[in-house]
Amino acid sequence: MSTLLTHDGKVASGLIISTDELDDLYGPREVEPFTPPPTGIDNLGITSSDSFHVPGLGSFTIEFKGYVRVARSTPTAPDWTNAEVYTRLIEMCMIGTAAGVGKVIVTLNPDYLSTGQLRTPFEDLGKTRPEKACRMAVGALFRAPQLSRTLFNKEPIELTIDNVCAIPPAGNPGVGRIYRNLPLYDLADPDGPIAAYLTGLNFAMGVYLTEKELTELRAAGERAPVH
Amino acid sequence: MSTLLTHDGKVASGLIISTDELDDLYGPREVEPFTPPPTGIDNLGITSSDSFHVPGLGSFTIEFKGYVRVARSTPTAPDWTNAEVYTRLIEMCMIGTAAGVGKVIVTLNPDYLSTGQLRTPFEDLGKTRPEKACRMAVGALFRAPQLSRTLFNKEPIELTIDNVCAIPPAGNPGVGRIYRNLPLYDLADPDGPIAAYLTGLNFAMGVYLTEKELTELRAAGERAPVH
Repeated sequence: MSTLLTHDGKVASGLIISTDELDDLYGPREVEPFTPPPTGIDNLGITSSDSFHVPGLGSFTIEFKGYVRVARSTPTAPDWTNAEVYTRLIEMCMIGTAAGVGKVIVTLNPDYLSTGQLRTPFEDLGKTRPEKACRMAVGALFRAPQLSRTLFNKEPIELTIDNVCAIPPAGNPGVGRIYRNLPLYDLADPDGPIAAYLTGLNFAMGVYLTEKELTELRAAGERAPVH
Repeated sequence: MSTLLTHDGKVASGLIISTDELDDLYGPREVEPFTPPPTGIDNLGITSSDSFHVPGLGSFTIEFKGYVRVARSTPTAPDWTNAEVYTRLIEMCMIGTAAGVGKVIVTLNPDYLSTGQLRTPFEDLGKTRPEKACRMAVGALFRAPQLSRTLFNKEPIELTIDNVCAIPPAGNPGVGRIYRNLPLYDLADPDGPIAAYLTGLNFAMGVYLTEKELTELRAAGERAPVH
């Protein structure tokens, strides 16, 4: 048995969280700061500014907007300082447009278990109301119908959020920790050459979406052209 | 078929390089600077200073010393500026010691295909003798016989080397691009909780080893206690 796969053959980036008994959490919803939250599935807005380099085509940046659904574990401790929370990105759809590239739709790679963690930095464990740090490893699909191509990453995209004073960190800015260039591959030729690079990523978590807003954003993703 | 696995079920971090027809390259050996090198398997020394945090045990740093064997592809172009070289770490053994932890032996996780790339940064493609940048995604096993534990990472450890003027970049310092804390898991309970964190990594590539030196370092790794 591989050390790196789940029982159903996904590549695991971290802890597996069962989503079977988790309630969906929708907006409007208040979040208590510095308080370990009840478990659930956060339905949140998200925006992201992603920069790419495509050999032969050049560099460009796309502004994406969409939603994420994040399953959260029960906190490991009742107090904020010691509580660790494990997360799993179970659904994502962001849509953006670039000149010459057209619409790009970003979703999760179903072959990858995108997981993460919120915890107090080791150096702040003596504080009573420390700001937490959040990290998540993501496997994504970047679908560009106008180019008839879908790109994906093999090394995970590591998303981090610092200065977390509430869980979920709605409204916080975050950074994709990309050093220079993260290779992207062509889904039609996954063992083939590097097709493009992700060169930068800055995102911001939005607030809780209403169930209606989530449904509309999901429908927009489903309406987006496939080829 | 998963987008993220090789045909034999390893998790692939990048391009697969066949090692079937590659010659082993040993020292003493001169490397021509700013010149795309002939393909082969580099047998190189390596040192690494790795910092860990183990909840309940604290933080410590271990100085490792050992070897790597790196398969290199044929450069994609005959000129230095445009040549890309793909790499695969096919063997590694580093040994270090820490007070209270004892000997720690670092090897490759056989479930992970640790691969990388050397290329000219996009902004330097107009230069005639640019310094290249090297990156490699590594899946490792950290075996601590005195603690009867072997730890491993699920998210790859991303090793980077900048200012590369020769391939291989013998003597260059490198950095593990770890943001705050990379979770490590217990090989005996791979789906279980996070066991420790890798919090920092600074390494330096050594020069070509002679075949005798490689054999001795490999034997030292094989002599190291298992439990």
